[in-house]
Amino acid sequence: MKAFNWQEAFGERASRIRASTIRELLKLTQRPGILSFAGGLPAPELFPKEEAAEKAAAILKAKGEVALQYGPTEGYFPLRAFVAEWIGVRPEEVLITTGSQQALDLLGKVFLDEGSPVLLEAPSYMGAIQALRPFGPRFLTVPAGEEGPDLDALEEVLQRERPRFLYLIPSFQNPSGGLMPLRARERLLELVMERGLVVVEDDAYRELYFGERRLPSLFELSREAGYPGVIYLGSFSKVLSPGLRVAFAVAHPEALQKLTQAKQGSDLHTPMLNQMLVHELAKEGFPERLERIRRVYREKAEAMLQALDREMPQGVRYTRPQGGMFVWMTLPEGLSAEALFQRAIEENVAFVPGSPFFANGGGENTLRLSYATLNPEGIAEGMRRLGRALKGLLALV
Amino acid sequence: MKAFNWQEAFGERASRIRASTIRELLKLTQRPGILSFAGGLPAPELFPKEEAAEKAAAILKAKGEVALQYGPTEGYFPLRAFVAEWIGVRPEEVLITTGSQQALDLLGKVFLDEGSPVLLEAPSYMGAIQALRPFGPRFLTVPAGEEGPDLDALEEVLQRERPRFLYLIPSFQNPSGGLMPLRARERLLELVMERGLVVVEDDAYRELYFGERRLPSLFELSREAGYPGVIYLGSFSKVLSPGLRVAFAVAHPEALQKLTQAKQGSDLHTPMLNQMLVHELAKEGFPERLERIRRVYREKAEAMLQALDREMPQGVRYTRPQGGMFVWMTLPEGLSAEALFQRAIEENVAFVPGSPFFANGGGENTLRLSYATLNPEGIAEGMRRLGRALKGLLALV
Repeated sequence: MKAFNWQEAFGERASRIRASTIRELLKLTQRPGILSFAGGLPAPELFPKEEAAEKAAAILKAKGEVALQYGPTEGYFPLRAFVAEWIGVRPEEVLITTGSQQALDLLGKVFLDEGSPVLLEAPSYMGAIQALRPFGPRFLTVPAGEEGPDLDALEEVLQRERPRFLYLIPSFQNPSGGLMPLRARERLLELVMERGLVVVEDDAYRELYFGERRLPSLFELSREAGYPGVIYLGSFSKVLSPGLRVAFAVAHPEALQKLTQAKQGSDLHTPMLNQMLVHELAKEGFPERLERIRRVYREKAEAMLQALDREMPQGVRYTRPQGGMFVWMTLPEGLSAEALFQRAIEENVAFVPGSPFFANGGGENTLRLSYATLNPEGIAEGMRRLGRALKGLLALV
Repeated sequence: MKAFNWQEAFGERASRIRASTIRELLKLTQRPGILSFAGGLPAPELFPKEEAAEKAAAILKAKGEVALQYGPTEGYFPLRAFVAEWIGVRPEEVLITTGSQQALDLLGKVFLDEGSPVLLEAPSYMGAIQALRPFGPRFLTVPAGEEGPDLDALEEVLQRERPRFLYLIPSFQNPSGGLMPLRARERLLELVMERGLVVVEDDAYRELYFGERRLPSLFELSREAGYPGVIYLGSFSKVLSPGLRVAFAVAHPEALQKLTQAKQGSDLHTPMLNQMLVHELAKEGFPERLERIRRVYREKAEAMLQALDREMPQGVRYTRPQGGMFVWMTLPEGLSAEALFQRAIEENVAFVPGSPFFANGGGENTLRLSYATLNPEGIAEGMRRLGRALKGLLALV
C-alpha cells in the first residue's frame, strides 16, 4: 500500500482555508466562569422561545409535507415576499441564504477568480475575509473608523485598481462599530457609480440603531439614483435568531440569478422549516420586536460604556457606539491585544483580539468587545476584570 | 454614470455556474395534473410530521437558547455521537453538513484547483457535477452500469491520470440504480490503495436496500484494511426529511479538520434546531423506521416494474433496482429522451432526461424515473401515460 499523505491530496486552495489562531483562542472563552465579550452572540433573552415552539409545532402539523420536503433554491415564497416588503423591493429580487455567511461564499464564487482584487475596510468582518480567501483574491484595504471607510484613501485606491466588488458594512460595522454619515454614503456612491463598480453592502445590524432613525442604506440611495450595482445583504440573525441560519441577498435580477445558481450547487436550498418558522415569527409584531431589541442593546451599550469609563486606565481609547453590538478598543501603541487576552483569560474575562479583522495585517493593539450577550451586571463585572488585566499588563511596560 | 454590465462584473468562474437546461425543463413538471417521476423527492407519507411537531416544540421550550443560538461548526455533539454509533466511528470523525450537497461543495473547495482531474462515474449524480464544476476541475469519467463502474476502464484511466479524488455512489447509484457487488468493491479498493488515492463514497441510499442486508461500504472495507483515504458521505434526507438539510461527512481527522474550516467560511454551522430535531427523531425507533421505509420503497419499486413490464414497448431497456429510489431507462439507439420528455409533458407525466448526469456528455437516449414520491396507483397510471408517449414517439421513427 502506498503511504497516504493528506497534505499532498489537498488542492492548493486548501492552504488558504485555515482556522485563524484567534478561533482557536476563542475556545478558551467557553471555559466555565469566563465572562465572554468575544462572540457576537445575540442576547438569548430576546429569543422568541415559547412563540417559536408554538409556531414550529403548528407548521409541522399543518404543512409538514412542505416543511420537511425539498424546496426551491430561491427560497420559500412567502418569506421572500416578507423580506421584499421590509426592504422595499420585489419578492423576485430576494434570495434566501443559509445565513449571511453563505451569501459571502456565493459572492466569492460568482465574482472572484484567482488574484481578483476585492476591496475591504480595515478592519472588516472576519467571516467575510474567511469566506472570500479560499477563492484566492487579492485584498485591497482602506482604513475605517467611527465614520466608516476613509474616502480619500478609497478614491486613491480606485484610481489605480478596479476591484471586483467593494465589501462594506456602513451601519454599526463589525468590528469597529463605525457608522457612515449620509454625506459619506453619497460620496462613496458617486465614486462607485462613476466607475461602474459593484458594492456589497452588509447590513446585518440595520435595525439595531440607538438614535431616532435609520440612515438610508447605500442600496436605497443607489436605487434612487437608478444605479443597479449594489448588492444588499440582510439577516434575521440579529433580530430573531442566528441559530436558524436564515438571511437574504437582494440584487439586480441578473446578479440574483447567478447567485441562485451558485447556491443550488452549494446546499440546494435553505431548510424549509426554518424559512417557514422565520416567516411566522416575523409576520406579526415585527416592529414592536425591533423596538424591544433596540432598547435592550442600547441599555447594554450604556452599561458597557459606563463601566469602561470607570475601569479603563489612561491611554486606552474606545468607540461610543450609536447602534449594533460592538465597542472597538485601541490600546496604547506597542501594547499587544493578544498579550492582554492571555491576562484576561486569567481574570476570567474574554474578548476578540483585533488583528484577524485586518485582511492584510495590522491592528495588533486593537480588540473587539461585544455587549450583546451578557446582562448589565455581567457587563459591569467583566469590565472590572478587563480593567484589572489591563492594569496588570501596563504595570509590566 | 458609467454603463453597468453584470457579465463583465462576474468572475470567469461564473461562466461555469449555470442552471442546466434540464432544471429549467423540470419547472414544467410542477404543472397541476402532471404525475412527476422527475424529482428524487422522498415519499411525503413517510415524513414524521406529528412527531416532529411535538419534538420541535419540546426542544424550543426546554433548550430554545441553544436551538436558536449560534452553534459549533463541527455540529451538535449529541447528533455527531448518534451518527458515529450508526456508522461505526468516533464522534470526532463526524462533521454535520447542510445536506450532502454542502459536503460536495466543501470537497470541491478543499481538493480541487483549476484543471484538477476528478473521476466520476458516467452517469453520476447531477448535483455533484454542479457542486464541483465551479472549481474548474477536469472531469474524468468511466462508464457505470448495474454493477457500478467499469473497473477495467477505471484501471486504464488510473494508469495515466491521478485524480484528486474518485466520487462514487456504490449502492443504488443516482441515477443508474447500480449496486457494486462485494468483489467489485474489493477490487476498486485495491486499485485505489495501490496508488494512495482519495475516494469520496456517497452513501445517501445506504439504508434503502430491498434484499436481506446491506453490502459493506467502501469506507468499512477501507477501515478494515487500515486505509485512511475514503471519505464517507451520509444523510438524513432519505430516512427522515430532506427539507431539514441535515447530512454528514466522516473522514480521517486531517481531512475532517480541513472540511470543517471550509464549512466555517461557507455557512458557519448547520442550523441548531434542525440538528437537535433530527437527533430527537432518530434516537428512538430508528431501526423500525428504516424497516418501514424499506418496505414502502420496495412496494413502490415493484409497482413501477410491473407497470413498466406491462406498458413499455419492445426495445426499451430498464434496470430492476435492488434498492434506492430510481429506475434507469435506455431508449433504443437514436431516440432522444428530451424529445420523449416533450411528449410526456403533453401526456401529463414527467421524468428526468439522462444527459445532464454525464459530466462529459452522452446518454441522450437515457432517462431516470423516481418511484419514491407517488403511491402505487399513481405509479401505474404514470407508466401508462409514459407508455403512450413512447409509442407515439416510436410511431414517428
